[in-house]
Amino acid sequence: MIDLSISFLSKFPPYFRAMFEDKNPQRTPISSLGEFGLIDLLTENIKLKNPSTLTGIGDDAAVMDPGENVVLTSTDMLIEGIHFDLSYVPLKHLGYKAAVVNFSDIYAMNGKPTQLYVALAASNRFPVEALEEIYVGIRMACQVYGVDLAGGDTTASNSGLVLSLTANGLAKKEDVVYRKGAKATDLIVMSGDIGGAYMGLQVLEREKQVFLVNPNMQPELQGNEYVLERQLKPEARKDIPELLAALGTKPTAMIDISDGLSSEILHLCKNSNVGCRIYEERIPIDPTVYNLCEEFKMNSTTVALNGGEDYELLFTIPIEDHDKIKHNPSLTVIGHITKAEEGAYLITRAEQAIELTARGWNGLDESEGEEK
Amino acid sequence: MIDLSISFLSKFPPYFRAMFEDKNPQRTPISSLGEFGLIDLLTENIKLKNPSTLTGIGDDAAVMDPGENVVLTSTDMLIEGIHFDLSYVPLKHLGYKAAVVNFSDIYAMNGKPTQLYVALAASNRFPVEALEEIYVGIRMACQVYGVDLAGGDTTASNSGLVLSLTANGLAKKEDVVYRKGAKATDLIVMSGDIGGAYMGLQVLEREKQVFLVNPNMQPELQGNEYVLERQLKPEARKDIPELLAALGTKPTAMIDISDGLSSEILHLCKNSNVGCRIYEERIPIDPTVYNLCEEFKMNSTTVALNGGEDYELLFTIPIEDHDKIKHNPSLTVIGHITKAEEGAYLITRAEQAIELTARGWNGLDESEGEEK
Repeated sequence: MIDLSISFLSKFPPYFRAMFEDKNPQRTPISSLGEFGLIDLLTENIKLKNPSTLTGIGDDAAVMDPGENVVLTSTDMLIEGIHFDLSYVPLKHLGYKAAVVNFSDIYAMNGKPTQLYVALAASNRFPVEALEEIYVGIRMACQVYGVDLAGGDTTASNSGLVLSLTANGLAKKEDVVYRKGAKATDLIVMSGDIGGAYMGLQVLEREKQVFLVNPNMQPELQGNEYVLERQLKPEARKDIPELLAALGTKPTAMIDISDGLSSEILHLCKNSNVGCRIYEERIPIDPTVYNLCEEFKMNSTTVALNGGEDYELLFTIPIEDHDKIKHNPSLTVIGHITKAEEGAYLITRAEQAIELTARGWNGLDESEGEEK
Repeated sequence: MIDLSISFLSKFPPYFRAMFEDKNPQRTPISSLGEFGLIDLLTENIKLKNPSTLTGIGDDAAVMDPGENVVLTSTDMLIEGIHFDLSYVPLKHLGYKAAVVNFSDIYAMNGKPTQLYVALAASNRFPVEALEEIYVGIRMACQVYGVDLAGGDTTASNSGLVLSLTANGLAKKEDVVYRKGAKATDLIVMSGDIGGAYMGLQVLEREKQVFLVNPNMQPELQGNEYVLERQLKPEARKDIPELLAALGTKPTAMIDISDGLSSEILHLCKNSNVGCRIYEERIPIDPTVYNLCEEFKMNSTTVALNGGEDYELLFTIPIEDHDKIKHNPSLTVIGHITKAEEGAYLITRAEQAIELTARGWNGLDESEGEEK
């Protein structure tokens, strides 16, 4: 079993050479294999497991038999220096995360991801072993989520690493949950808690600065495992669609929280032509996140609203289904849908109504991308 | 109707500022729109036309109803400085080509492309108008090929432009043509002619060098329209699968010629576990290409074998079907399949047998990518 647990933190000091983790000190230049050899190496022994995957890697296109289902397709691009910093993101975690964020989009439609296509560009500062590490992470994610790595494109880059992954998934037509569909009085529910991934990034950035000043300093990561794992090894909420089905409810609208709660709620409201009220006191935030916000002098609600990258699911259910979900530890009701003309507001602990704004990542970091 | 004809060559001197074609002198910074605004602008008024596209842009994933068909998926990544040079590639042509190369992969499986997903990363040296130009090209390709632009991801880059496009297509399960399936005695057939796209690139590179020395020189492009169009505005052979069906034959194996005839033939041979003989004198090469090869002191057969980017279709048909295709002006029989142990050879005009090697683009340019 490949180790993708957060325990790698203790295993690879100095942590801040994550990309160059030296279990394998080889540095094979990509040019020594050629593109064909590289592809063979990265994709060898891939076993297709989904009956829907008729043909994977090795032809002009992959072939998928959806049976009676509709096909869901999502795509996400990760750019070095914009979405990740290789001085503290281990390559296999990067591969894992790149896959998971696509799967998350498929779950957010109430579907199951089935095939993954990987387009990867790397400059010649990346040895073959670095690309293998990325593929270790991608393949691990495929294994965990039961997805077939079914195709892609591998190419040179003259400036850094680019990962562009596309996932196909399946759902029965009548099961698909869109962003539209939320109705006034519906409850707004989310899985898990938020703000962790963003605070994990803050910790990593802080330790990077310390390291740049003094490369012999050990990074202070202990105690922050939760937020670091949220940032470096996010998981898609595969369990939530299953849970909701088991509880006998179906979301009227759903989205995954990739950009921050505020912008995701606004997407649901805009697409459903409704308004909303969410309550500051209801937003689920882990105690570690509260503590770190204090340490970093940040407002935890702002972090929760705009932080992003937690990949929890945000959805609405009819108010009549409240009893079905109210005691479930994975789910939190954070507000309710209103008519469009009532606007979209956060009600603070002091009972102030603050209009939600669609800043997404932009609110915290101008350079971040936004999924269509 | 958007002008994507090669006639733009005469219209926009100096040609070698193609990216900055100044019909629209505006330079709106992307940051002024924000990511959400940019996406809205680029994707406004998209009308979905395929009944298979249930939902396009605007949700976590696109939703497609394949009906009774299997789904084909191909992905291609284009990186600035590796796959294109913006000093002579107009942005709308880049968008058009990025889409077409994916459609070509779907046709090479004997399917029809139906949905396109566009992941795009651009640094802040690209104004909004530049991205709009790319989308003009992408949308034009979608219109010409009857494909819906159904999703994507738009993000920042800190170094140049990256396009990663994925296409879904449909085919009846029994109609799909794989790379495997070629049998000894099958005829090897290709559409159109090859070498043009590569010689177009040579012309563009030469004129770029001239321009760099003297920016007031007008590029000498007249007379080279054919090869320039092959390079800058390739088309996928949508017509060939239809033609073959009309002629009453079905390929036993098929691939599109993106990397050069030699490596594509070897892909077919490897996947089908066969060998081949192709005949130098049979390789269809346009007279313009012969003339340019002479001018550039290149061997036209080497250019045809290793040049790539012509996006013609290469396929095998049973020898019994020879009569059905032999007089068709779009098709040329260039050789035949043999048993694997007989190897893969080019028979020259001098009747020498030269072993084919899988250099693909690598044979001419070390930095080029290779589709899986």
